[in-house]
Order: sequence, then structure tokens, then C-alpha cells
Amino acid sequence: MANAEIIAVGSELLTADKIDTNSLWLTDQLNSLGVEVRRKLVVGDDRRLLAESIRQALRDADIVILTGGLGPTEDDVTREATSEALGRNLVFRQDLLDALIERFQRLNRNMAENNRRQTFLIEGAEPLPNDRGTAAGQWIDADGKVILLLPGPPNELKAMFSGQCVPKLRAKLPTQVIRTRFYRVAGMGESDLDQLISPVYKPYENPVTTILAGAGDIQIHLRAHGETEPEAEALLAAVGSPIEELLGDRIYSRDGANLETVIGGLLRARGASLSVAESCSGGLLGGRITSVPGSSDYYLGGFLVYSDAMKTQLLGVDPALLQKHTSVSEEAAKAMATSARDRTGSTYALSVTGEAGPRSQSGVPVGTVIIGFAGPAGAPEAATYRLFGDRNGVRARAAQWALDYLRRKLQASRSF
Amino acid sequence: MANAEIIAVGSELLTADKIDTNSLWLTDQLNSLGVEVRRKLVVGDDRRLLAESIRQALRDADIVILTGGLGPTEDDVTREATSEALGRNLVFRQDLLDALIERFQRLNRNMAENNRRQTFLIEGAEPLPNDRGTAAGQWIDADGKVILLLPGPPNELKAMFSGQCVPKLRAKLPTQVIRTRFYRVAGMGESDLDQLISPVYKPYENPVTTILAGAGDIQIHLRAHGETEPEAEALLAAVGSPIEELLGDRIYSRDGANLETVIGGLLRARGASLSVAESCSGGLLGGRITSVPGSSDYYLGGFLVYSDAMKTQLLGVDPALLQKHTSVSEEAAKAMATSARDRTGSTYALSVTGEAGPRSQSGVPVGTVIIGFAGPAGAPEAATYRLFGDRNGVRARAAQWALDYLRRKLQASRSF
Repeated sequence: MANAEIIAVGSELLTADKIDTNSLWLTDQLNSLGVEVRRKLVVGDDRRLLAESIRQALRDADIVILTGGLGPTEDDVTREATSEALGRNLVFRQDLLDALIERFQRLNRNMAENNRRQTFLIEGAEPLPNDRGTAAGQWIDADGKVILLLPGPPNELKAMFSGQCVPKLRAKLPTQVIRTRFYRVAGMGESDLDQLISPVYKPYENPVTTILAGAGDIQIHLRAHGETEPEAEALLAAVGSPIEELLGDRIYSRDGANLETVIGGLLRARGASLSVAESCSGGLLGGRITSVPGSSDYYLGGFLVYSDAMKTQLLGVDPALLQKHTSVSEEAAKAMATSARDRTGSTYALSVTGEAGPRSQSGVPVGTVIIGFAGPAGAPEAATYRLFGDRNGVRARAAQWALDYLRRKLQASRSF
Repeated sequence: MANAEIIAVGSELLTADKIDTNSLWLTDQLNSLGVEVRRKLVVGDDRRLLAESIRQALRDADIVILTGGLGPTEDDVTREATSEALGRNLVFRQDLLDALIERFQRLNRNMAENNRRQTFLIEGAEPLPNDRGTAAGQWIDADGKVILLLPGPPNELKAMFSGQCVPKLRAKLPTQVIRTRFYRVAGMGESDLDQLISPVYKPYENPVTTILAGAGDIQIHLRAHGETEPEAEALLAAVGSPIEELLGDRIYSRDGANLETVIGGLLRARGASLSVAESCSGGLLGGRITSVPGSSDYYLGGFLVYSDAMKTQLLGVDPALLQKHTSVSEEAAKAMATSARDRTGSTYALSVTGEAGPRSQSGVPVGTVIIGFAGPAGAPEAATYRLFGDRNGVRARAAQWALDYLRRKLQASRSF
């Protein structure tokens, strides 16, 4: 397997709040080509240190990718540092200057004198035209290794790498077929999920299994590589099929769609509408449902009933019920869902009530969340969960659990 | 000025989705000590490459900080790689073993044999006890340089660095006084803000000015360093005072508090309550207000009225008004706010209506957002904004602009 180092250039990337996101995207691209990233660096605008870093990288890596530092100013040192590291001159290229002048004319702007710095190539390099900016990239072959100089702005880098570098790298690298599967999972905690499926994926280095989790939304990526398509598919199935069996209907999406989009599709297919009544989630559930373009096709709206008084005043929940069971009860959740459905005229209604903390006000433990559900027929339902996290972690999970509750109800019966 | 390199260790940090956030936090801490970060690396669990990376870092840097790779397994190579790079042996420490055994006993767990790997120190190193995990850190003095081995889990690393390393580093480094100012700004776009204040801060390298922006919420950090406190304060004032004058009441916080917390404080101080009526923001406004612990002291709840029918059905907005002006109108926003106030009995009410896109349904351009406001006295008010961003960018800014509208109203008059 070939390996690569990525060097991000720029003093701004050495501050406390800047992340080098280019290297994440490049890692994904390189992995797809069967290339492993062995080391990543961030180096400031320091020619000597950058030259030394390039020399160090070239000792072992097959591919060295530099991003940034190709601009027109004195701070942009990638060309000079690479020239120094390789012991090759920088040579002026009239064709690059012509292209740059033409670009500025087209945009009706004057070209500054220092843009000429961008018309120099490392001796023997092949220029990589940049139709989105002034910095041409460079492809350099040196002693069987490849050095790529790419612009820093992500849109320029991505277009140049995908369009020009990937085909050239693919031609150089041993043939690799990559096949992937992607699952999104709701309704269970991250550690429960890992306990369930890690015996399946842990023994395999190929496919590579990556699990990403945030507030009760879990993404599982499988990526298999092989010399042929059947080989890659077989490796993928060896891990993917048992995972699918173990997770069953907890998998809500195989194409990357998020939960609110999946639910929108289910409601739209049934010509059904939805309303909500939110207490502890405070609007997060409605916020997620309406993040989907076109959600007005199936979503009507609802009630934010943060206080007990509002549950009675806006939804007509019986004060005696709240007195007897508290507002964090299945009884209250059912009454909220029923009333939201009746007052909006929706087909379905979801309600959320619970204790997000930091302190419990109803007496039930912090993290207790109750989802209520009312459909067009049958009695309302409710379910109680103990959710993990701080105040806003519990609130975010409450919205996620409510959406997943509705998904299961909609998927369980095509006719109800 | 002293300089540092940070090396994050762990193959999991070389995947397409993992970010080395420890180095961001450490950069902030080091900058506060007057130390500049000159290079950052991420290296996989590869002893040879890590040892070589440490040797390279020690060539020029005064301080080399390694994070991660101190666990008990064979994959954890930081101790061995540092030993190799420095040419110093690893020595067993009975006191570390005793502490580890005691820790496991206290947690009622068995200590695995491989935890013994964590009881070895680089020759001459000083152990840094870890009361949050099993990995002791190490402080190593070598040829006038400092090498720190710190655990990877952020909570362990932060406690160890703040509690043990900062005092020792401060004693070693030349005295530097750091003074900071911090502003949070709402109600204007990021590029407008930068155009306004960049002539003030651009000429200065000290203080360092950092601007962070997200969905209409802008944070401005100023950090000045000097040899004495008056020097640092004077430098800070040279940039901070003109910025404060230019931004005026667009600065809503000087202590880091977010907008929903500031508003909570203003409402609580007045013994006032708040309700909302949300259309295009779909719950995001309520979600933000209720993200503040204790918000039930002043927040009652409100209405999610995504469709025109709901504006009439839940809020009683006159259908003729919606017919005449559409729901994206100041008239509609005022009617929504008035009705939310009346139906909840709150002191104040905010409403949000607009076109978040991707396509306009009312005829007004996408990005148009109207904030409505009703107070205890006087006629309701409304203001129209053209907000930037895609669908969810517009929605997030709509909530931000609504909160800021209320803040200005509350701050404008102490008595109303």
C-alpha cells in the first residue's frame, strides 16, 4: 500500500481556532485510492522550516502533498521551500503568465506585480491549471515519488485534486477497487451500539469500519478494497451483513439521509401531516422537522409549552392530571400529543416532556424524557427513556428519540 | 519568544473524520504563556516514525509536547519512541505501580497485566500524576529544552497541563503579562463588521485580534502581551477602545455570555416573561431560549405556526390579513406577536416569519425575514431584514436577529 504525508502551510493554521480541514478531505480521497496517510503536518509561513519538513517527509513517504502557500505575497513560501528541499530551480513560465493576464482581463481587474510570483514552476514540474483562482498547482515527479503543490482555498484544492490529480494518481498506483456501505442508526446509545457490533468488525482491517456518533445519531461507514469488484464486495458483505442483521430496524437510512428527511418521505408518501407539542425540547424538534426543504408539505406546526400553566392554557391539559402525575409523566405526554393533534387537525402528533437538568424540578431523575404519540386511530401512546448527556445533550437526544419513535410507527404499519 | 511543537499521536487521528482538538486548546494555553507554536504534527502509532518526528522537533523547538499514545497497549508507543529519540532508558517506578494498583482497588476493578507498561518513565523524567486516568504524564528536561508527554483524552490532558505544566512553564519562561478583551456582537454581517473594524486592528501585531463568526454571531478576541501590566493594558486599549466606539450597542456581551443568556438576565432583572410565535424559524428560537438553565423563570412557551392555516387556527390571525399582505409581512408578524402575548399572558412576545428558501413561496425574495415584537404597552412593532445564507443559515440568523431585537428593546428602556 502506498503512503502519503500531507503538509498544510500557513501561520493562520497555527492559531487556537483554525482547523486544517483540507487534510481531512484529502485523507478521504487518498484512502479511496488505497493510499494510507502516515503523517500530517501544519507548518507556518517559514521557508526554512517548511523546506526541512518537506525533506523529512520525502525520506519515507511515496506521496507528499502540500496545501496552501501558493499565493502572490512574500508570506507565500511553498514554491521557494520546495525548490530548496528538492535542490531544483524555480523557472519562469510564459504560458502561466499569459493565462494569469488573460484571467485578470476577463475579470476586468488589474494584475498586481507580485502575482508574477505565481508564474514560476519547480524545474521539471507539470503545472496544474486552476480555473477558480490565480494559484496554479504543481505536479512534481522526483526519484519515484510524487510531490503535489495545491492551493489552500478548499474549493480550488478540491476541484484541482479531483479533476487533475486523482486520474494521474490512479494511473500510477496499483489497481484498487473500493466499495462502501453506510448506515445511519437511531434509538440506541453509542456504547451499546459498539458493544453489539464490535465483535463483528474488530477482526477486520479490510473493510475499514468507522463509527461517528453525535447526540444519539450514529453513522457507520464500511470501506472495503480489493483487486477486483467481487473481492471488495465479498469483504464488505462479511462485515456489513452481520451488522445489518444485528441492528435490524434501528438502521434508518442507507443513503446518508438524516432522520428528519426520512420521516418527511414517510409522511409525504402517506399524504399525512404532523404537529408537535414540546416541553423540555423547547423547539428543537420543530426546528429539525422544518430544516428539510418542502417540510410545509406535511408539517403544520405546534405548541411550545414550557411551563405547566402553558400546557393547560395552550393545550387544555387538565390541571388535575398535571397535579396528580406531574408534567413529566406518560399521562401528560399522551394528553399533550392528543391535544396537539386535535387543535391542529394533523394526522399524527408527537409530544416531548422531560427533565433536561441541570436540576430536576418534577422529582424524576435528570435525563428522563417521555415521548407521546397520537395517531388518527387508537389510543395515544407514550414511552419513557433515560437519555445521556448534559442539559443540551439530553434535549438534542429527546428530539432525536421523538423523530425515531414516529419513524418506527410509520414503518411498522403501512395502513394505520 | 519561546516556541513549541505539538505532536498528536494516534492512528485514529489520521482518518478522514477525526480532528486533533487537543492542539487547538494547547495552542491557546501556550500563546497565553507567550509561547508560539511553530509546527503541529499528527503521527500514527508507528514507533520509528514517531521517534524520528521527536528528533526533528527537538532540533529547533524549545518545547515539544506529545499528546496521546500513553495507554497500556502495544499500540501505545509514545514512551518507547521518546526513549529512542532521546537515547534514554525507560525505568520502572514502584511508586507509579503502587498508585495504579491503589486506583484500580478504589474503583473495584482488576488491573490488567499490560497496565504495567504505564509505570515506566523516561530516565530523568518527572512523573505528572493523573487523577482522571491511568496514564501518568512525564516532564522531561533535556539540553535546555522541555519535552512533555501528556495523555490523549482531553479532560485528562487539560487538567494535567493547567494544573501541573502551566506553573512550571511560567517559572521557566521570561515574564510576560497577557491581557485580553472579548466582545460578542450581533445584528450585523461578518463582512460588514470586518470592513468597519479592520482599519483599527490590522496595523497591530500586538494585540492579536481574532474574529470568529457563525450565523450572525460574531466573537472578537483581543490578546495583548507586554513586559508589564500597564504596557499590556495600553496596547489593548489602543485597539479595544476604537472598536468599542465603532460597534457601540452592537456589542451584547463582554464576558463571553451568549445572546440567549444575556436576554435571560435582562428579563429576569425586570421580572418579565416571554413567549414566541415562530414560522420560518420552526422552533429554533424557542430551542435557543430554553438552552439556558433556569429559563423557565421567564420563558413561557409559544406557537409553531408553519402554515397559514395554523397562523389562523392557533393564533387567530385574520385570514383576510394573510390574504392581503401574505404571511411574510410586517402586518402578519405584528399580529403573530400580539396574539402570542395575549394567549400566553407573557410580558413580551417575539414572532418570526420569512422566506428561508430554497424557493420563495410568498413572492418576497429568499432571505427576507420579519421580526415582530409586542410589549406590555404601545403598538406592536416589526422590522424586515435580508439575511444571508442557505435555508438553515437564514433560519439560524432569523433566531439570532429576533433575540437581538428583544435585547435592544429591553436595553433601550429600563422602565418599559
